[in-house]
Amino acid sequence: MTGHDGHAPFAYEGLDRVMHEKARLGILTSLIGHPQGVAFADLKRLCGLTDGNLSRHLQVLQDAGLIGVERGYEGNRPHTTYRLTAEGRKRFADYLTVLEQVVRNAAGAAEDEDVATGLLPLRST
Amino acid sequence: MTGHDGHAPFAYEGLDRVMHEKARLGILTSLIGHPQGVAFADLKRLCGLTDGNLSRHLQVLQDAGLIGVERGYEGNRPHTTYRLTAEGRKRFADYLTVLEQVVRNAAGAAEDEDVATGLLPLRST
Repeated sequence: MTGHDGHAPFAYEGLDRVMHEKARLGILTSLIGHPQGVAFADLKRLCGLTDGNLSRHLQVLQDAGLIGVERGYEGNRPHTTYRLTAEGRKRFADYLTVLEQVVRNAAGAAEDEDVATGLLPLRST
Repeated sequence: MTGHDGHAPFAYEGLDRVMHEKARLGILTSLIGHPQGVAFADLKRLCGLTDGNLSRHLQVLQDAGLIGVERGYEGNRPHTTYRLTAEGRKRFADYLTVLEQVVRNAAGAAEDEDVATGLLPLRST
């Protein structure tokens, strides 16, 4: 077993439920590359969400302080854009570090198993 | 924007809700390296879960066909172990591929932004 010093190695405390939800993960990934903001219609297309679902998830992210909203006009049509806040950027980066850890843990464990089951030669010491 | 051929690039359909839940992700990661199975008490420690929570999540994974249970005895004490089914192993591997994609997308987008905001020099063409 991999437990070290009483700490639960696979508890993944850093997988904040606000960011870990599938649709919100898509929204945050869409926003991280666009500091100038992304329009509602573009987010809808990028994330494959309905108006209702996208609105609901944006509200959750906004309530958590992860994203900000700018309501303006393009010509005389309302044009709303969404962007990560500074805090949102930091917290999403922290979240991604944990996500990478999950992938590394799982890949490492799967490889150990291949060794255990004889699918891979044991590394020489 | 990154949308290609009408497909939503950040929809992440493959993030199956059964596996994506934080506690269940910990359980699956604990199991992937142990084809001989992991005991309830060890899973509890590895994942930092209470008896009740661990039982509940194991049941969800079992109902989804991802894990199997073996109830036996060690001496005359009941000893129950859990392991991934063949289908569970395949589906978790597919899930991990999508998770890796999320990390790659976000890292790539963040780097593009650093370029856009002048934090990184533009790559020469």
